Amino acid sequence: MKQIACLLLSLFVVSGVAAQHNETDMDALFIKKIHAQALNDGRCYEWLTQLTTVAPGRLAGSPAAAAAVEYTRFILDTLGLDTVWLQPCIVPYWVRGDKEQVRIVNSRKMGSIELRALALGNSLGTGPQGLTAEVVEVRSLSEVDSLGRKGVEGKIVFYNRPMDPTSVNTFAAYGGAVDQRGAGAGRASKYGAVGVLVRSMTTRIDHIPHTGGMSYPPDVKPIPAIAISTADAELLSAVLREEPVRVYMRSTSQMMPDQLTHNVIGEIRGSEFPDEIILVGGHLDSWDVGGGAHDDGAGCVHSMEVLRILLQTGYRPKRTIRCVLFANEENGLVGGRTYARISNEKEEYHLAAIESDRGGFTPRGFTFEADESVFTQKFRQVTQWLPLLEPYGLQFRKGGSGADIGPLKSQKGLLIGFEPDTQRYFDFHHAPNDNIDAVNKRELELGAATMASLVYLLDKYGL
Amino acid sequence: MKQIACLLLSLFVVSGVAAQHNETDMDALFIKKIHAQALNDGRCYEWLTQLTTVAPGRLAGSPAAAAAVEYTRFILDTLGLDTVWLQPCIVPYWVRGDKEQVRIVNSRKMGSIELRALALGNSLGTGPQGLTAEVVEVRSLSEVDSLGRKGVEGKIVFYNRPMDPTSVNTFAAYGGAVDQRGAGAGRASKYGAVGVLVRSMTTRIDHIPHTGGMSYPPDVKPIPAIAISTADAELLSAVLREEPVRVYMRSTSQMMPDQLTHNVIGEIRGSEFPDEIILVGGHLDSWDVGGGAHDDGAGCVHSMEVLRILLQTGYRPKRTIRCVLFANEENGLVGGRTYARISNEKEEYHLAAIESDRGGFTPRGFTFEADESVFTQKFRQVTQWLPLLEPYGLQFRKGGSGADIGPLKSQKGLLIGFEPDTQRYFDFHHAPNDNIDAVNKRELELGAATMASLVYLLDKYGL
Repeated sequence: MKQIACLLLSLFVVSGVAAQHNETDMDALFIKKIHAQALNDGRCYEWLTQLTTVAPGRLAGSPAAAAAVEYTRFILDTLGLDTVWLQPCIVPYWVRGDKEQVRIVNSRKMGSIELRALALGNSLGTGPQGLTAEVVEVRSLSEVDSLGRKGVEGKIVFYNRPMDPTSVNTFAAYGGAVDQRGAGAGRASKYGAVGVLVRSMTTRIDHIPHTGGMSYPPDVKPIPAIAISTADAELLSAVLREEPVRVYMRSTSQMMPDQLTHNVIGEIRGSEFPDEIILVGGHLDSWDVGGGAHDDGAGCVHSMEVLRILLQTGYRPKRTIRCVLFANEENGLVGGRTYARISNEKEEYHLAAIESDRGGFTPRGFTFEADESVFTQKFRQVTQWLPLLEPYGLQFRKGGSGADIGPLKSQKGLLIGFEPDTQRYFDFHHAPNDNIDAVNKRELELGAATMASLVYLLDKYGL
Repeated sequence: MKQIACLLLSLFVVSGVAAQHNETDMDALFIKKIHAQALNDGRCYEWLTQLTTVAPGRLAGSPAAAAAVEYTRFILDTLGLDTVWLQPCIVPYWVRGDKEQVRIVNSRKMGSIELRALALGNSLGTGPQGLTAEVVEVRSLSEVDSLGRKGVEGKIVFYNRPMDPTSVNTFAAYGGAVDQRGAGAGRASKYGAVGVLVRSMTTRIDHIPHTGGMSYPPDVKPIPAIAISTADAELLSAVLREEPVRVYMRSTSQMMPDQLTHNVIGEIRGSEFPDEIILVGGHLDSWDVGGGAHDDGAGCVHSMEVLRILLQTGYRPKRTIRCVLFANEENGLVGGRTYARISNEKEEYHLAAIESDRGGFTPRGFTFEADESVFTQKFRQVTQWLPLLEPYGLQFRKGGSGADIGPLKSQKGLLIGFEPDTQRYFDFHHAPNDNIDAVNKRELELGAATMASLVYLLDKYGL
């Protein structure tokens, strides 16, 4: 009897192992199928070409943003989803106004020198007359504190601490410099500065200025803030080492009344657990210069492509797969906040949310975060799937997910950031050259396949 | 006594661990310093710009190849190495001749259609009159065997099996298609074909033809072989589905008398073990079209930069670090064979050789091979260093190293291939668009830093 029991047990174990083995083989096969669909019949590059053509410079609230909403809704409508809808958001609306002017006006050695410039997003302009003042160069906010009112009053503060080019993690290098852009004007104004110039956030030395978000603290007078190209930052710094100079700066940027725009949403309703939502998303808005190809057109077309791939491969998801193209990531985050608020009101549960907002480059993996109470268990669970993705050169690590999905954290699902190679990202980030020619078709398609593969596993096995 | 012995032992163990720990910290620090040197003060991008400007299309034996020898010797001379020398090689010399013509001549629906074409390297031309024949499309060499003399005699065989775009390993996709280019003409000639057209080796569908090496087996009549762009291959195939067509093809390519060229070599002599050589190299020749930026200008400037970085960081190698820029990888391998022959004659020992010949993209790691008798031990040894390189996103795996260093295998050192991300490589490979604008400065610099880091570890710890 005991022998028979043992035999039966062995049979169960063997067939259990075999079943598990088969399941893994099937998953490997399906992930291969996903990649074949993305790389043979992918649509995302074509969509990104169109999006950057019909709606470049689609800053939230702008006519271009409205065009982007229309275009992406139109594409989602062609995919055969269960639902497509627009979610209204009232967003801040900033306009650049005239082409900025920044000019060194009294260099003894070099005369008048024009610098390539872009006003920072949300910044107030100089007014039509512009302003002229002496320039004081600093490397940090705290240096402004040290200089104090005596050192900066009546002057233009020039923030010139570079992104660290030696950091292999380009996002860390960005994080280590971007306080100058975001908070530099506020700090300088506190001590009576009349304007700020900020070195562009890129490790390249070139003539392309990069814009990006800034804000004023409530208690200071808003002063104009303009980015200059890294090459011009180097030039201005070199001139300042030789002689004190005055700079003329002019911008007519301003905040306009809030505007109505939309999050664009489409979903495939789950066949078994429709109330468990797996979100894939990017942000539809971009800065007002350039095509917003990598930031974040890539994330939008990645997300739409995930849905298309799943449908085209004949997969019927058990859970609800929802693509969300968020409004206003760049200068307000209203899209992400609105989406989370409404989702919470509806008592929805996002089992997982994946954001793609680091460009359309070769995939390297994903970063994961979640509410502390659930992170360890959920991360352990997804890590079991890693052997299926390692053959594609992918890794998992703990790390931030995405600005737009962040507000969903309280739902205690897993928040996931798609992580591509980012060595080229800051060559184009927030700049006029972030256009389709900066995107490689194959790299973009691989990103969509990578995201679809993880969505498939999340849907099949849950969390 | 026993207690004292125990105490002494613990002290030894603790200090041993501490020493090892310190050593690892020092290594981590030095690898950081290498990266800082490459990314802050790197020269390789500037060198590659110059190399592709002064010596584009530097096919072995050509005047451009001679210019490349002069330019790189000049740069090596500026680095303060212990020796720089040229190693003569007698190489085959192929010339393209006139611009190729490939034209569909009798399509009823579309009339005459010009196809974008490049004669394959080493191929013989059609003669000045060109030739016209009916086209038979095949997907493989074995399909030609099946068709036999009856199916191909007097015809142009059109090889049209694409590189598999769904393979994430692009080199595997290349390997799966390139037999058509290398051996297609020989196979077709065996059955009496008069010429071959070959679909370009790239996963992109575009209008850029890609050349590359081919050879004729000794027992067949050489027939002309021309690559056409993938878009034109698709077009020709579509036309052939509708109607049989004849194609006119004309090329005047030919082999010229062998030429003298040189391997370019520079070295830092080792202070302790000068007879243990660590080689870094790439190949100096390229195809005769385009700048040869990724293939393999990148590998050449990577290798020169390794030496510069080590000297600039103040490192004094114990072993001899030698940079070798090989002649004639593309159509003969004479450079690599000559180098190994002379090295063997001198009874040299290459402890390790690293080749960079997969482009100047973001580093992913290295591939390792060696004589079977030593591989396991040596690979285990280098794998101990992996934790120092993982923070840079690098992995080690077993795999081929490089065509030029392959002949050194009998010296029983470790042969290593630098492995970057290769998703974009075949967009440019052997094609007129392989120019400096296809290379990202930062990605190129990271490659040099990655190679220098491994050279440092190989030199410090030996094998």
